[in-house]
Amino acid sequence: MSPLSSEKHAEKHAELASRIIDGKGIARALTDQVGRDVAAFVDDGNVLPGLAVVLVGNDPASEVYVKNKAIQTHRVGMRSFMHMLPQSTSQDELLDLIAQLNVNPKIHGILVQLPLPAQIDPVVVTNAIAPHKDVDGLGEVNAGRLSLGIDGIVPCTPLGCLMLLKSVHEDMTGKHAVVIGASNLVGKPMAQLLLKENCTVTVAHIHTRNTKELAREADILVVATGKSGLVRGDWIKPGATVIDVGITRVPAENGKTRLVGDVAFDEALPIAGHITPVPGGVGPMTIACLLHNTLQAAKATHAIVGASS
Amino acid sequence: MSPLSSEKHAEKHAELASRIIDGKGIARALTDQVGRDVAAFVDDGNVLPGLAVVLVGNDPASEVYVKNKAIQTHRVGMRSFMHMLPQSTSQDELLDLIAQLNVNPKIHGILVQLPLPAQIDPVVVTNAIAPHKDVDGLGEVNAGRLSLGIDGIVPCTPLGCLMLLKSVHEDMTGKHAVVIGASNLVGKPMAQLLLKENCTVTVAHIHTRNTKELAREADILVVATGKSGLVRGDWIKPGATVIDVGITRVPAENGKTRLVGDVAFDEALPIAGHITPVPGGVGPMTIACLLHNTLQAAKATHAIVGASS
Repeated sequence: MSPLSSEKHAEKHAELASRIIDGKGIARALTDQVGRDVAAFVDDGNVLPGLAVVLVGNDPASEVYVKNKAIQTHRVGMRSFMHMLPQSTSQDELLDLIAQLNVNPKIHGILVQLPLPAQIDPVVVTNAIAPHKDVDGLGEVNAGRLSLGIDGIVPCTPLGCLMLLKSVHEDMTGKHAVVIGASNLVGKPMAQLLLKENCTVTVAHIHTRNTKELAREADILVVATGKSGLVRGDWIKPGATVIDVGITRVPAENGKTRLVGDVAFDEALPIAGHITPVPGGVGPMTIACLLHNTLQAAKATHAIVGASS
Repeated sequence: MSPLSSEKHAEKHAELASRIIDGKGIARALTDQVGRDVAAFVDDGNVLPGLAVVLVGNDPASEVYVKNKAIQTHRVGMRSFMHMLPQSTSQDELLDLIAQLNVNPKIHGILVQLPLPAQIDPVVVTNAIAPHKDVDGLGEVNAGRLSLGIDGIVPCTPLGCLMLLKSVHEDMTGKHAVVIGASNLVGKPMAQLLLKENCTVTVAHIHTRNTKELAREADILVVATGKSGLVRGDWIKPGATVIDVGITRVPAENGKTRLVGDVAFDEALPIAGHITPVPGGVGPMTIACLLHNTLQAAKATHAIVGASS
């Protein structure tokens, strides 16, 4: 290889690297900001914001998530409350706990880790959380506020995706956003956030017949299907911004495992204008947004108390 | 014209007429069904369903709507309550009235006619209606339930559109539905209903750049923009089902006025597979769905009372 082509190769490599959206870095910056805001909030004489996380049963993956959330909560200077309940917990017992947390003034955010055991209806539980403490934004009141375009708590993962998009696009007005996946957790709230940003929005899902052709029309493509490698390079419009919410553990060549997204990253990178990696893209944003939402919830409660006292 | 071509002409005319979705007839059938269901509900020893309609000010168009709703409510055998408040009514006075209606056991549905005078925030008022009496389905709780795909009260106009679509399509799974207009009243809830029917859904609006091209991809096209004649014949995919929510009064040739939709009907009819006329399409469905929602609300209240007694 001649020195020139080697230089060109390095340039090309740097250009490709510049397309990768640094979710890890953006999440760290957001977490740091939340930390400073918590300190300032407490310095102003306000109560320490507190987040209660409830885990029912002992699913190992859920235990890891919950502990990670507790560590991060402490790290930004907020109070963390952990409630580990046995697998056999009844729905009424869980509802009793939520009722207590709803009225506990030290707690500003309540998160019930999903999935729940079969004897508990997640819809009933989620809607039992007081809307102003529903920092996961998954209850009907916050879902309704998002749908109606009024202030509320936005689910953490789509909020994180929106922040990543805003790191690339100052204004998304008129862009065609295609969301693949229509879950309550990601796809549907994501579509509503993009609509609020004045995007034209298409939602594709398991029943969609021409997902590839629709994806190719997207200026902004958000993929949240859980099907690793579903979106190939030729699904992507040249220059599009691609947000990959998927995260699946697959066998790696060395006999170990690795995490991959719903997008075939190596194929997509040369075509996309900007793209999130997996891991290090959307994943880190979710917890950062949970901390952000908890602080916002504490501020909102304070504002109500302040106004009425 | 030869007898044969005259016959063909008549055939063609009949074929075109068969494409027109008879909203008036479907609304009448629904209203008749509600009437029979009300009678059966009361025969079963239940309370007479009651609908309260609140009008603030004296906008002539709103007065007509409100009186028409009262007449229809009576016609299906339900109790109608009218509350006509002066234009100067304060938000607190209106909220007081809603609080009374919320706890009045004779009232199962509450509708506040929009628009409201400038001193009153429609979001605050809409959300003050108890969710189980919010028969317009415009409050945050019902909006959230619709978004999450759980049972709730669906806004009347998009519900009516869905019923018209179901008169044509037994199953909409996999069809590409394009909704033009993204209002809280029609476009957004319509998109969620279509998603629930397993359609691929695109929402276009004032900021969309290629509305015509998107419309041409639609198997199901719902237009709710208020721009008369926006959608021309060449915007429509051959064979598509077209639902026209628009209704605008325009000058007619004879010096009078006439009502037109957002779709250029004469151009669209030969291309569409099925199309709603204006008037006589979506319009009559809205009141019929209000009566339907009020009966459902009464039944739901009864179910709760029944379960706890």
